[in-house]
This record gives sequence, C-alpha cells and structure tokens, in this order.
Amino acid sequence: MKPTPKLQPDRTTILAFGAHPDDIEFGCGGVIALETQAGRAAHFVVCSRGEAGTNGTPAQRTAEARKGAALLGATLEFIDLGGDAHLEVSVANTLKLAAIIRRVRPAVVLAPTPAGNQHPDHAAVGRMVRDAARLARYGGIKELKRRPAHAIRQLLFYAVTLEAEPAGVPPVLIDVTDVATLWWEAMAAHRSQAKTRGYAGLQVARATMHGQRAGVGLATPLFPNDPLIFESLQPLGRAARQF
Amino acid sequence: MKPTPKLQPDRTTILAFGAHPDDIEFGCGGVIALETQAGRAAHFVVCSRGEAGTNGTPAQRTAEARKGAALLGATLEFIDLGGDAHLEVSVANTLKLAAIIRRVRPAVVLAPTPAGNQHPDHAAVGRMVRDAARLARYGGIKELKRRPAHAIRQLLFYAVTLEAEPAGVPPVLIDVTDVATLWWEAMAAHRSQAKTRGYAGLQVARATMHGQRAGVGLATPLFPNDPLIFESLQPLGRAARQF
Amino acid sequence: MKPTPKLQPDRTTILAFGAHPDDIEFGCGGVIALETQAGRAAHFVVCSRGEAGTNGTPAQRTAEARKGAALLGATLEFIDLGGDAHLEVSVANTLKLAAIIRRVRPAVVLAPTPAGNQHPDHAAVGRMVRDAARLARYGGIKELKRRPAHAIRQLLFYAVTLEAEPAGVPPVLIDVTDVATLWWEAMAAHRSQAKTRGYAGLQVARATMHGQRAGVGLATPLFPNDPLIFESLQPLGRAARQF
Amino acid sequence: MKPTPKLQPDRTTILAFGAHPDDIEFGCGGVIALETQAGRAAHFVVCSRGEAGTNGTPAQRTAEARKGAALLGATLEFIDLGGDAHLEVSVANTLKLAAIIRRVRPAVVLAPTPAGNQHPDHAAVGRMVRDAARLARYGGIKELKRRPAHAIRQLLFYAVTLEAEPAGVPPVLIDVTDVATLWWEAMAAHRSQAKTRGYAGLQVARATMHGQRAGVGLATPLFPNDPLIFESLQPLGRAARQF
Amino acid sequence: MKPTPKLQPDRTTILAFGAHPDDIEFGCGGVIALETQAGRAAHFVVCSRGEAGTNGTPAQRTAEARKGAALLGATLEFIDLGGDAHLEVSVANTLKLAAIIRRVRPAVVLAPTPAGNQHPDHAAVGRMVRDAARLARYGGIKELKRRPAHAIRQLLFYAVTLEAEPAGVPPVLIDVTDVATLWWEAMAAHRSQAKTRGYAGLQVARATMHGQRAGVGLATPLFPNDPLIFESLQPLGRAARQF
Amino acid sequence: MKPTPKLQPDRTTILAFGAHPDDIEFGCGGVIALETQAGRAAHFVVCSRGEAGTNGTPAQRTAEARKGAALLGATLEFIDLGGDAHLEVSVANTLKLAAIIRRVRPAVVLAPTPAGNQHPDHAAVGRMVRDAARLARYGGIKELKRRPAHAIRQLLFYAVTLEAEPAGVPPVLIDVTDVATLWWEAMAAHRSQAKTRGYAGLQVARATMHGQRAGVGLATPLFPNDPLIFESLQPLGRAARQF
Repeated sequence: MKPTPKLQPDRTTILAFGAHPDDIEFGCGGVIALETQAGRAAHFVVCSRGEAGTNGTPAQRTAEARKGAALLGATLEFIDLGGDAHLEVSVANTLKLAAIIRRVRPAVVLAPTPAGNQHPDHAAVGRMVRDAARLARYGGIKELKRRPAHAIRQLLFYAVTLEAEPAGVPPVLIDVTDVATLWWEAMAAHRSQAKTRGYAGLQVARATMHGQRAGVGLATPLFPNDPLIFESLQPLGRAARQF
Repeated sequence: MKPTPKLQPDRTTILAFGAHPDDIEFGCGGVIALETQAGRAAHFVVCSRGEAGTNGTPAQRTAEARKGAALLGATLEFIDLGGDAHLEVSVANTLKLAAIIRRVRPAVVLAPTPAGNQHPDHAAVGRMVRDAARLARYGGIKELKRRPAHAIRQLLFYAVTLEAEPAGVPPVLIDVTDVATLWWEAMAAHRSQAKTRGYAGLQVARATMHGQRAGVGLATPLFPNDPLIFESLQPLGRAARQF
Repeated sequence: MKPTPKLQPDRTTILAFGAHPDDIEFGCGGVIALETQAGRAAHFVVCSRGEAGTNGTPAQRTAEARKGAALLGATLEFIDLGGDAHLEVSVANTLKLAAIIRRVRPAVVLAPTPAGNQHPDHAAVGRMVRDAARLARYGGIKELKRRPAHAIRQLLFYAVTLEAEPAGVPPVLIDVTDVATLWWEAMAAHRSQAKTRGYAGLQVARATMHGQRAGVGLATPLFPNDPLIFESLQPLGRAARQF
Repeated sequence: MKPTPKLQPDRTTILAFGAHPDDIEFGCGGVIALETQAGRAAHFVVCSRGEAGTNGTPAQRTAEARKGAALLGATLEFIDLGGDAHLEVSVANTLKLAAIIRRVRPAVVLAPTPAGNQHPDHAAVGRMVRDAARLARYGGIKELKRRPAHAIRQLLFYAVTLEAEPAGVPPVLIDVTDVATLWWEAMAAHRSQAKTRGYAGLQVARATMHGQRAGVGLATPLFPNDPLIFESLQPLGRAARQF
Repeated sequence: MKPTPKLQPDRTTILAFGAHPDDIEFGCGGVIALETQAGRAAHFVVCSRGEAGTNGTPAQRTAEARKGAALLGATLEFIDLGGDAHLEVSVANTLKLAAIIRRVRPAVVLAPTPAGNQHPDHAAVGRMVRDAARLARYGGIKELKRRPAHAIRQLLFYAVTLEAEPAGVPPVLIDVTDVATLWWEAMAAHRSQAKTRGYAGLQVARATMHGQRAGVGLATPLFPNDPLIFESLQPLGRAARQF
Repeated sequence: MKPTPKLQPDRTTILAFGAHPDDIEFGCGGVIALETQAGRAAHFVVCSRGEAGTNGTPAQRTAEARKGAALLGATLEFIDLGGDAHLEVSVANTLKLAAIIRRVRPAVVLAPTPAGNQHPDHAAVGRMVRDAARLARYGGIKELKRRPAHAIRQLLFYAVTLEAEPAGVPPVLIDVTDVATLWWEAMAAHRSQAKTRGYAGLQVARATMHGQRAGVGLATPLFPNDPLIFESLQPLGRAARQF
C-alpha cells in the first residue's frame, strides 16, 4: 500500500470502496456529489486498476479514476487485493480494509452489495467491507493495533447493476436530481469504458425509474446493512410513493 | 360515525389506526409519546371497542382507550367497521378510512402490518389503511368528494406480535428509551387486558431486544410501506449494529 | 355486460385485462404491438372507465382507451366490476372474468400482478384473473355452462409500477425496441393522464433499464404465473445478462 | 489439464459441468439427451473422479462417466480442481473454468446450483461456473488471453437434490418424457453408485412430480441465472399448470 | 349445517378441513391413517360437494368422501360455505369454522395451505381456518358463545399440489410408508376423479421424493403455521437429510 | 489438535461448536443445560480463544469457557482454525471439523447460523460445520479414514444475535424456563465479556420474547438445517402461538 493523502477525519466523512476504477462513480457518484457539495469529506478506495477489462490500460483507468474523484471532490487511493478479476475473499484482505477504516475513521461507509450474481470482484469487496466494518471495532486484532478501534455509523451498499440489488430488500433513495450534471461528468470521466458499454445510460435509467416513483428527477437506491435508528419520526423525511 | 374532535392539521400530524382499543398503545405507544412530547399532534382511530375479547366490557375498553390516548397526548375517535373480530376488508370500509385521512390530513400514518398470521382484524386494518392512503389521493372518488384530496408523507406499519413483523423486511427503529415510563403507563391503562395476557411484557421484551442491538435501552421497530427518500446521507442518523 | 365484438379465437389469441382504461397500454403495450404486428389477435378487457381518477371524464377515458387499443390493433370491451376504485375480489366478479376467458378462448392471458402494494384495483384484477383462469377449466360451474371449458396456455402478469413487480421473482423480458414508437403513441393516446403524472416516462425508464441489461433498447418485464415448459433448450432464446 | 477432444464449436453447443462423475447424468441427463438427439453437440467437464465417495474406485467412476457421456452422445473431459470433497472456490479454479468456456465456446452452460445446503463440491462448482461465465467475456485477463473472449447465451443451473433447488425461484421445465429410457440408462451407467443410494429413483420422483404438474410424463427443472429474453410471446410455449 | 356425529373430544383428536370431497385424502390421507391406526380420533369437515368439478355428481362425490373417510377411520361432515368454486373468505364463514373447532375441540387442525396460486377454494379454506383457530380462543364473540373457548395445540397446513407449498418454508415430514396401501385406497375411493386427472400419482410422486430424501419410502410434507416448541432436543426425532 | 477428553458416544450425545469461548453459552446454553440435566452427554468445540476481542486475555477466556462448560455439565476442547477473527472457510478446516464429528459421533450437532451479517467467524463456523456434517458421512475421504463414517441425526443452528437468525425461516423453540438460572450462570462465567457488552441481556430479551409468544418464560430459537421427520403427529408437541 502506497502512502495515502492525509484526511481530516470527522464524524461526517464518507468512505467509499470500489472494486474497479469506475464502480463508485457509477454506483453512487451522485450521492458523493451531494455530500461533498455540502462540505463533507469523501475518500475513495479503489481495489484494482481495471487491468482485466476489455478496454483501457491500467494507466488510463488510473487517470480516469483520479479525474472522477476530483470532479466529485473526493480524495482517492488505490490498493492491491490481488488485481482486477482476481479479488478473493480472505481474512488478510479483509484486515487490509479494516485498517483503512481505522485510518480514515468515517461516519458512513459505501460499498458494492455482496449479491452473488454480479462481477465476482464486486461481491468480494462488498462481503469484505461488511466484515471489515465489524473487525475495525474489535480491540484485540494484532494486525490492526497500530490505530485505535473505530465504529462506523452506517454501512450502505450501492448497486452497479439491477442484478446486484438485493432481492426483496427495500432501498433508501437519495434524491440526486440537483447534482445530475456533476454525476454525469464523473461517469463520463471514465472515457475508456464508454466505448463499448452503456453503463452510464444504465445508471441514469435506474435513477430515473427510482426518481419518478418518488416524484423527483433522479434517485440513487442504497441498501443499509443494518436497520436505521431514529430519535423520532421527523427525520424520516418522506416516503417514495407517488403512483 | 360520531362527531369527532377538531384537529389542527399540519405537516407533522400523526394519524394512528388500531383494530382494538389497545393496539396502538401496545404496538407504537412509545413512538406516539415521542411525537406528542415534541409538540406534534397525534390522533387515534380505533376500529372496534374490543367487544369480542375474553376480558373487559366495551364500556371498560372504551374508557381504557381514552385514558391511554390522554396519557400519550393524543386525540381519539372510535369508528365502526363491523365490530371486534368482524372487521372485513371491503371497499366501503376502505373508503371510510380514506375519508378520515382526508379529514385529519396527517403527515405520517401508523397502522398494524398486513401480515396474514395474526389476529385477522389487525391484518384487515393494515391492508385497508394501505389502500386508503392511496385512495385519499385520487380526485374522482365520489364518496370522498366532501374534502380535498390528501397525500400523506409516509405510511409506517407497527407490529403487535413477532409474527406480525413482515419476514425479511428490515425495520426502522425508533429509540423510545426516554419515554419508557409513559409508554408503560399507556399500556397499563388497558387494565382489563392485563389479567390474562402478558402483552405489555411482550412489547417490552421486543423493544429491549431491538434496543440492545442498537445500543439503546428500548427501540420500537416500524416497517415503512415505501422506500424512504432523503436529500443526503446525513439525516439517516445511525445504524443499529452494536454486536 | 354489453354486446362485445366477435373474435376469431385461435391458439394464438392474446387476452389482456386492465383495471383502468390505460393500464394495458402502460404495462404491456409494447408486447401487444409485437403480437398484433405479427398477425395475432389481441383483445382488451377494461374493468372500469377511470371515473375515480383525478383527471379525465369517463367519456374521455373511454375514448382514449378505444384509441389506444385501435393503435395497437386490439379489440376492446369494457366491463363493470363495481367501478373505478371500487373493484372488489369476489366469486361473482371472478366468474365474470372466467366467462370472458371461455368466450375469447385465448392462448395467453395478460393481467396486472396481484402484488399488494399498488392501486388496489390492480391487485384485485390480478388475483381474480388468476383464479378465473383456473375456474374456466372446470366443467361443473353452472354460471359458466353456456360455453365449453377452456384451458389457457399461459398467464403472464405485467406491472405498471416498480412496486407491483413481485419481489424476488425473475421476469421474462420481451424485447420491444422495434415497436417503441407505436407503444409510445398508445400510451400518449391517454392524453387526460399525461397532464399530471409521468406514467409514460416511468414505463420507458423501466423498459430502458431492463433493455440495457439485455443489450437491447427497450424490454418489458412479464411475470409468468406458472413455470414455463419447453421441448428442448433451443426455444429459450438467450438470457439477459450483458453486464 | 490433459489434451481434450476437439469440438466443433457452434452457436448451439451445450457445455455441462459436474462436480462428480455422475452429477450431470443425474441432474440433467434427460435434457442432454434431447439436445444431442436433435443433432447438437454436448461436452461434459467433470471436476473430480469421485475418489471421496463411499463406493467405487476412481477408475470405476471414470469408466462409468465415460459410459454415461457416450450413451448421451456427449464428449467428456476430466479436470482437477483439488479432488473430490476438496473443491474450493478460488480465482485460480474459476479461471480454469473460464478458459474451458473460451475453448468450447458454448451457447448454453449447465452447472449445479450454487445453493449452500448440498454437497459442498456442488455449490463450489455452481458458484465458480457462474463467475467463470462472466470472466470469459472480459478482454484483459491475462490467464485467458490464449483464446478470444466468449459470451455464452445462457447459464442454466440443475439440481441433483431437492435441497439444491433455489427457494422461491420458479424453474423452467424441460419435457424429457421422450428420452426417459436413455436418461435412465445414463444414470444406470453409474453402477457403483447404485448399491447404496437411491439417487436415480430420487431423480425420477422429482421429474415425475414436475411432469405431472405440467401434464407430461417427466420434466427436468432448470434454474436460469438471468432473466430470459424473447422477441415475442410465441416462443414461451406453454405454462406448466395442470392442477 | 346439519346435525353432525358426536365426537369424543380429547387432547389427541385431529380435525381436518377440506374444500372439496377429496382434498383431505389427497393432501394428508397417509397422516390421518397413521393417527387413527394409533387409536386417535379424526374428524373431517368438507366444505363443498364437488359440484363444480368436471367429473362426478355431488351424490357420487359425497359417497366417495364417505368411503374415503371410513377407510381412514375418520368421521365426516359436510358444511356449506357457498358451494364448490364459490367459497369466499368472510367473517361469517370463518365463524362457522371456529364454531366447529369449539365443538370438536381438537388438539391438531389440518387445512390446505393459504398459498394464492392454487384452486381458490383451497386458499380460502386455508386462510379461514387459520383465522378461525384464533377466533375460537376469544371469549367474547357472540356467535360462538354456545360453547366454551378452545385453544388448539397446532395448525398444520397440507398441500395438494406443489404450487400450494409455501415458498421458502421448510416442511415437517411425516413418514407414511407403513400406511401406503391404506392411503392409496383412500385416494382411490374418489373414483370419479381418477378418470381424467393424475392427482393420486402426483401425490405419490411428491411423497416418494420427500421420502427418498429422508431415507424412507413415502413422506408427507406439512407446514406448521407457528413455530413448534419442545421441552428438549430429544422429541425432534431426526432430520431428513440423506443426500 | 491436542488430546481431548474421552467421550462415551451414544445416540443422544450433543456436539456444540462455537467460534469464540462464549458463543455456545450465549446462543444455546439453556438448551445444553436441559440435555445434560436429563443425563445426556454434551461436548463443546471452541474454535478460538477470543484473542481478538476487546476485553479478556486468551488465558482468561479459556478459563471462562472451562467454567461455563463445567456449569453446563459439558466436556470442552479448543481447536485452532487460524485464530479469533481469522477463521477462514477452507476444505482443510472443514475436514478438521468432520474428523471431530467422526470422533465424537453425536446425535445432534449445534453450530452458529451461517448468516452473512454477523461476526465473520460465526458464519465461517456455521458454514463449515454444515459441510463437515456431510463429509463425515462419505467413505472415501482419506483425511478422515482413521475413523468410521458417521451420520448425525440433526444439525441445528443457534443465533447469537437477532441479525444471525435466518430471515423468513421459522425456528423451533426449546422451552428453557426451568434452567434459566443455570443458563444465566453459564453466561455470567464469561466475566471478561460482561464489562462492555450486554450480550447476556440481549439473549434474555430474545428468549423472553420467544417464550412469551409461546406462553412460557424463556425459549431458545433453533434453526434446523433440514426438514424434521416424524413417525406421527404426536411428537410435534405443541405450537408456539399464544397471541
């Protein structure tokens, strides 16, 4: 792991994990834009350089990721968990992720869903982040002792494809209408991926569908790993039903 | 339907439906207490007088419901949908509930879950409130034309028993620790029901279990009918995982 | 029930049920277009005239439905099951639908899904069509004796909203890219509904999303009521995964 | 991996994976028979020689598998993924399977379901084939660069036991009545397994049950990994309901 | 309701409900045989005379039901809930069933599953028996006051078809191998139904499949409505896994 | 693996696996107490010494586990599968567990549920025990040849947290009211864990809730891996519904 940029950890920092250089932008780029525009810090951890993809060299993919993160106002680091298409669920990799959680000390963690029927790297990162968020809290793990234990406030999963949405689990929706242009630019930063696949169009179609059911332009679905807890009914905002 | 108390409808009013005189207190009394203590209006609609129960006369049950509502700071009305143990899902009954929604104009509606394996009156009220919340929005229903259409902000289901919790659907938790005494008193107001059943103890055991997993004393699980929508990640508060 | 147009029943006729004048066009208009353009007969049964809707008079809605059906090359009849927002699941209504199935003798029946969390009329029609397709096969039902029993080949449910899609059940997708313009025109025929709601846009967003995952422009999801049976693997066509 | 027989890859080739020498015959032997009798090529990849089983030596099991494949008109190869009862989900093993998919270039892939509660080797093969079918499409994986990327048309899971059928997911049924004798012979080729277990009888009971519900003699349930996509309603054939 | 035979209620009586004259024999006839051969009383309540069926007159169906019950050692009564294919879920019908439960005072109640995708009469009886078992316990229902309240020990659902088995819910299996002949004879008593449908064969295929997975000849799956409770692990017998 | 105490294997021995020194006591200590008080043997296998926990040294945790097991009348051994927070699902580890099953030859095996959203060690042990129970039956696995194959009678999963309960799967409940004190003492033996976490209180709240729904004081939910099979309806005891 290379030296990483210094962060100003506080109780609102967002930490987003992606398996490939474009996952975060495609899965939850609009949500990140909302947070950073409101003045909160966001940090991206990308677990490969896309070297197994059909298009784009690792150097290109790295540059695209840097551009995407910069557009969204997020800092970025790359880590090596075995390489693109080679991410394997293991305790050693999970502890690497837990160490990052301890270092960044985020309030909210975003990761791909652990659903089985998607790119195996996505599921692997999702499962390991879920476990890492637990292990970061435990006091006695020797590989993590360099830094104090940290309990995140929430783990939210994002989906890059419809198949990755967990069946039967209702999402929470984040209204990203106001940041649509910025989200699109962050996706478009991944130019090498635009040639052969309609990923960005897929995301917009998904967000349009969720948005229209909620009476807004675009909404990103997120899947909380744990029940949300509130002090009253007021913060629940409103529900999505318009039809 | 008798004349009902005048309400000051605003965007924070809570409207809670119960099949029997004690359902609201047992299923979500703590949540109501939180809302009314914060100065928001709550109104209860009870759909029978408990006349089919093993214990308590309708007169006793009515008095107990009035006492429970008063303790929680809520107004109360009784309606007749066929009588205790005789509630039937029908369009006519559903429209009665929709008319009440139009009259009270609540932000949030609370109702028993429509899960099948519970007292059939609970499921009937849950299903009809769900449909009534839709019908209250439609402009052309002649039985409802007396009052303007109204779109609620959210429908949240409460469960009176574990079986009534919808399988596989994560709840949102409301921290009711600070109103534990008041919640207990509101349940205890239903003295006729205390003789033979441990309902109140069941609720406290459920709330203790949910609370402990969230690191608080007592938490009430609620089940949103529709995905929640937020403007950013910040209002989500925190997640429940402590173990 | 008024006199209805004569049909040429054969083994490929499609019979589509809708609760309201626009349900069929919105939920599966593209699929109907594919079938009728291939020379197969389609017949629509609409169970209300939209008289409870916010916009449009029954006369307007009736005219719009006629225009939509005509555009799609389908015949159309209206039936009365209690009126818009008043459809109730009952044996009498179910037998009316079964009688229509016996008269039309379709190969394939389309109906709204019976999912609970949608307009209650949609769920009511879905449940009753499902039961009616069974009852149409039984020889001894006296209300149906006027015509010989009929076994349909398949019952496929369509969804008008995302909430109406049955959770966890994979759809079959129908590629409607080639009939996109006609589908859009059929939806647009319901002009009174275009004023305040983005129904057509919602359908296109849903179809775009399903289409993109399958590598086609637009795809309509349908939900078979029963397992499909094939003589070999060849007719299965191809699967939807592109991402 | 030893040299394997040359195949004539075309758009109809079937590639079936099994964890043990008899899995394919028991789980989907009838389906294979239908395909090969129609002139399509089938190739079996067996991932162990059954050396951990209670009955039969690896040599016997190998010979039985060859006989079973020959009866069904399929070619056969064995691969080594760690040995019977030792199959482990890993990227290296998954890439071995992906390389086979690239070499054989099948239209349809068959594999055991990835359901957890069955012989762990079955689940391991199911999960790895699912991932391998994705990885075979990606252009940049260096272990796979020897051959061009290949996108299969569908991945269908077969179940060897009832527990292996994914809960709540409707199967597609393949009518194997006409090849019942050949299917039985292919199962019977695994003579060493006939001594102590009623596997063949279990399969026939399952196929009888599925067949009778569909009005045919015997039907094999298959579970598509992805939604099926069709150009119209006609290829859907008919649905299974007879009762 | 006609006069019904006197029963000797005790803590082991079985009360089985069927929608049609043959449902009980087909769905759980073997289980009944086990109980009556062990000296326990069984009583059948059949809710129609099969007058809507394709084959058999009501008189024939009545005689067949009497023969089936006699073979199984059960007493039998017919009740009228609207007639075959006309059973409707209503409070009035549910209270009729609750009154029977109070009269018979069974330990165990058997009923068809309430699954939606089956003959609507089956689902209607299943749902109403589930509710009736609750209402029979409540002290204040005036229609039931003739007899004292009664709490059954368990409600177990049986399935007549595979579709009627609740998805994702594990059954308990009852080993009916020793009563196979008697079960078959009881099914065969329904001669009018044997002409055109393979119901009995379907049941035997289902029971063979469940039996083989448990290492016995034939097993009937039953679906408890509520969790089972035991005093220790010993009465749990053994689990079904043999493969 | 160190030498382990000699057991008197018979058809009633209980074998319980835990990931950490306190898992068995917290998840199913009351059930163990019932069994050993009835004279049946119980043996605990603990797969780590809790060395990654926030509180307690491995030596303390080991002593606490010995005390807990002694209180419950169970024998105990520790095994090493990589260490606390480092348990990894692998064939080698699974075979270690299978070898223990062959040595102890239990009737019933207890293990943590394999649910994903809990401490990853719990899920790892649950999944491996499930697989080990299968592998212990197969005759040809060379690592296991030292001892004869053994088929357990049942595998029952216990949950340490609510999240670990498998969604939508009904438990069987064991009435542990009579051994409440002993269960509490066994949990309290893990003194190092009492400082910062309310684990014991969580268990009692869960057991109270399950008990009250069943009309008993405390009940432990267990989740059978396979359907239960019975010789008649009588051993099913009674169902849990009281509300």
